[in-house]
Amino acid sequence: MSDDYFHLLNIIGVAFFAVSGTLLGYEKKVGGFGVVVVACATALGGGSLRDLLLNEPVFWVADPDYLYSTYGAIVITILFIRYLPNVSNYYLLLLDAVGMAIFNIIGIEKSLIGGTGMVIAITMGTTTGIFGGLIRDVICREIPSVMRGELYASACIAGGLAYALLFTLGVPYVWCILGSLFTTVFIRMGALHWNWKLHIFKRKHHS
Amino acid sequence: MSDDYFHLLNIIGVAFFAVSGTLLGYEKKVGGFGVVVVACATALGGGSLRDLLLNEPVFWVADPDYLYSTYGAIVITILFIRYLPNVSNYYLLLLDAVGMAIFNIIGIEKSLIGGTGMVIAITMGTTTGIFGGLIRDVICREIPSVMRGELYASACIAGGLAYALLFTLGVPYVWCILGSLFTTVFIRMGALHWNWKLHIFKRKHHS
Amino acid sequence: MSDDYFHLLNIIGVAFFAVSGTLLGYEKKVGGFGVVVVACATALGGGSLRDLLLNEPVFWVADPDYLYSTYGAIVITILFIRYLPNVSNYYLLLLDAVGMAIFNIIGIEKSLIGGTGMVIAITMGTTTGIFGGLIRDVICREIPSVMRGELYASACIAGGLAYALLFTLGVPYVWCILGSLFTTVFIRMGALHWNWKLHIFKRKHHS
Repeated sequence: MSDDYFHLLNIIGVAFFAVSGTLLGYEKKVGGFGVVVVACATALGGGSLRDLLLNEPVFWVADPDYLYSTYGAIVITILFIRYLPNVSNYYLLLLDAVGMAIFNIIGIEKSLIGGTGMVIAITMGTTTGIFGGLIRDVICREIPSVMRGELYASACIAGGLAYALLFTLGVPYVWCILGSLFTTVFIRMGALHWNWKLHIFKRKHHS
Repeated sequence: MSDDYFHLLNIIGVAFFAVSGTLLGYEKKVGGFGVVVVACATALGGGSLRDLLLNEPVFWVADPDYLYSTYGAIVITILFIRYLPNVSNYYLLLLDAVGMAIFNIIGIEKSLIGGTGMVIAITMGTTTGIFGGLIRDVICREIPSVMRGELYASACIAGGLAYALLFTLGVPYVWCILGSLFTTVFIRMGALHWNWKLHIFKRKHHS
Repeated sequence: MSDDYFHLLNIIGVAFFAVSGTLLGYEKKVGGFGVVVVACATALGGGSLRDLLLNEPVFWVADPDYLYSTYGAIVITILFIRYLPNVSNYYLLLLDAVGMAIFNIIGIEKSLIGGTGMVIAITMGTTTGIFGGLIRDVICREIPSVMRGELYASACIAGGLAYALLFTLGVPYVWCILGSLFTTVFIRMGALHWNWKLHIFKRKHHS
């Protein structure tokens, strides 16, 4: 994947997560510029952890474009909420799913380029995809999405496996990306729509 | 800013946050040496994140002085509490505000010296200033200060903007530092005293 | 300590924490692959922070063995729970204590090899030992073990001091390791069995 792809995907992913962070901050009545902190942590958290783990320069410190994208998305979301204050929770979840899918892909790609094997790369992708939303939920004292039985981490891992499969088959990069993106978002939103569950343990303890 | 300045400010900031962490641990009845962990996380968290993001050696790993300052401040605070167990919550908030202001300045300075632009530097300053207290609140299961409408993040950002303004005007370093410090502490403590609020969203949802 | 020792201890420590994360996830009814995320965060969190702070390559990114150990331990634990769903909480606490003791030792050793003094090394050991379990507790919205008065951080610090003492006395590595391991696990499990407490503050506020 070329640097341009990275750059564009990162810009979009960051903006999506910034919107999702702002929306949750609004819902949770976070005061003043606390919303900006929550949104920034959501947008920049996952990618920062990825770059630290891979021992690469942290993306938003190396290139201010990502901060412009983050702050721009926050300001637009705030203006939007001022005129349409009844935002459906559905959009928050959709934005979060797409952001997660994008960061998942970037995490895998960056990891492979850094020379790791596929197991590490998929782990890195899921870490990157989940971490921003996890920080957001912890700061806002929400039950982390990861804990709920709504195929959150599962969707991310499935998207990673889809990427690995397409990559191994020698499919062109752009189709690896689209295939992984579609898998993650489809499983996540499908689980929310049709109430899909996945029971790793026996269901005994659900009385 | 010379290395000596950095060193001294860091020593003071670390001690202030260590005291604030110890006080919150005391209030929350954290058991045994858990108080030391909470205080260390508060004192060292923000600066560690800053150094990791800037890809510099982590300050307390490179120089043991910061640990001596942290542990010294913890021991003194514990002795103090033993004799004066009814510490006013006001001091906790004041110490936190000054610590935040100091780490804000160090974050901005270190970022600028590292070659970043002003937008990244102000973001780094706020990150550094807020993160230690955020970890403290999360560990102690407090509502994070960032979430409350008491101009916490806002004070930090305002202090960063004050620094940027004075810096751009070519004011000597020491005045940049003092101006930023005063702005952050004044806005934060003023908000607590006079109940200042900042409404980013329309107030519709506050019924 | 040779690299082989490191490798083996790390593999074991990672597996212990992975089991403890899976067990807590099971208890807290974390849905689907969320359990895997919680277990990975527990297993890899402390060591990742250690390597980042010491500016060394993150262990599980540099060598996939640690991920194999983590995933293997998770799968075995899940299979185990399916057949024996009534796991005693005692095992969770014991595994956590041993994992903590192991990571404590690795943190101290790696820090000393990196050239730091003993104060920094003990701090690094405790950080490494505690951090994985802390993330686990925060994600699962448990009261962090560190906060409770059950000699958790205290056991880790005591294990560090035991290591430092034996190391200073020139005792062979393997006995430093065993002495520290025994101290940490004994104090931690003893506190749980016999309800040992440590009162740093006066007991006035316990009415």
